[in-house]
Amino acid sequence: MAGLYFEDFKVGDTYKSTRMTVTESQIIDFATQYDPQPFHTNIEAAKESIFGGLVASGIHTVALAFRLFFMTGALENNLGSPGFDELRWLKPVRPGDTLFAVGEVMETTPSKKHDDRGTVRFRYSSHNQKGEMVLSVIGKQILKKKPI
Amino acid sequence: MAGLYFEDFKVGDTYKSTRMTVTESQIIDFATQYDPQPFHTNIEAAKESIFGGLVASGIHTVALAFRLFFMTGALENNLGSPGFDELRWLKPVRPGDTLFAVGEVMETTPSKKHDDRGTVRFRYSSHNQKGEMVLSVIGKQILKKKPI
Repeated sequence: MAGLYFEDFKVGDTYKSTRMTVTESQIIDFATQYDPQPFHTNIEAAKESIFGGLVASGIHTVALAFRLFFMTGALENNLGSPGFDELRWLKPVRPGDTLFAVGEVMETTPSKKHDDRGTVRFRYSSHNQKGEMVLSVIGKQILKKKPI
Repeated sequence: MAGLYFEDFKVGDTYKSTRMTVTESQIIDFATQYDPQPFHTNIEAAKESIFGGLVASGIHTVALAFRLFFMTGALENNLGSPGFDELRWLKPVRPGDTLFAVGEVMETTPSKKHDDRGTVRFRYSSHNQKGEMVLSVIGKQILKKKPI
């Protein structure tokens, strides 16, 4: 899967990652640094929250999905990203959940300005061990074309 | 600013954070764990990239903006977020950049289903020491109403 260039991406292609288990300490460590809300950092307070227990920061969930997706090798020739058009946290991610990520090609657009690159629009998603989609993101990546 | 409830947010209100300097080691540490692309983790490879030097992972930039925004206290009664509708990485964030975040209230909608909460739509942005907006995010938060 490694070493893909812009031309290699076709609408409908999907890239599926390996799986990774999220631990309680990862959830608390990330949130303590970046998203210090009680339902992400405090087991006792989380029990009283609408989640009924500790849940991963949404930003942590996004970071984990992209870490899994980068491991597929699909973005080895990625030059950057202008942004996301839609991001949905669909289900909480809890300690012990085992996640995998999927990227589906929605659209490919060669750059008009730069001969050496193009934009690929992906729908990314992250899924848990119960078959639930926990995260959905639509976003663009700028990918290098094959060297001539 | 602490302890704000749904009713306290009015369209046009803005909440501005303190400032924080991003270091090279923070950028490399985050990216090594979550976004291991060469322009985020490898100083030499980053020099050859389109960025011309090391830049923070976009997901790290989002995490930093929310960490700064949470420090304002505006989201102390936050119950969670369904997602973002638009996210744009406008400028690279580089080692030594000093950032602050701003949240502007765009819309407030009481919940029809739950008497005790409402949704606030924010435009978040993150800004560097040169006055450049580096990140723009439109997203929703579900906030508790004042206890009766």
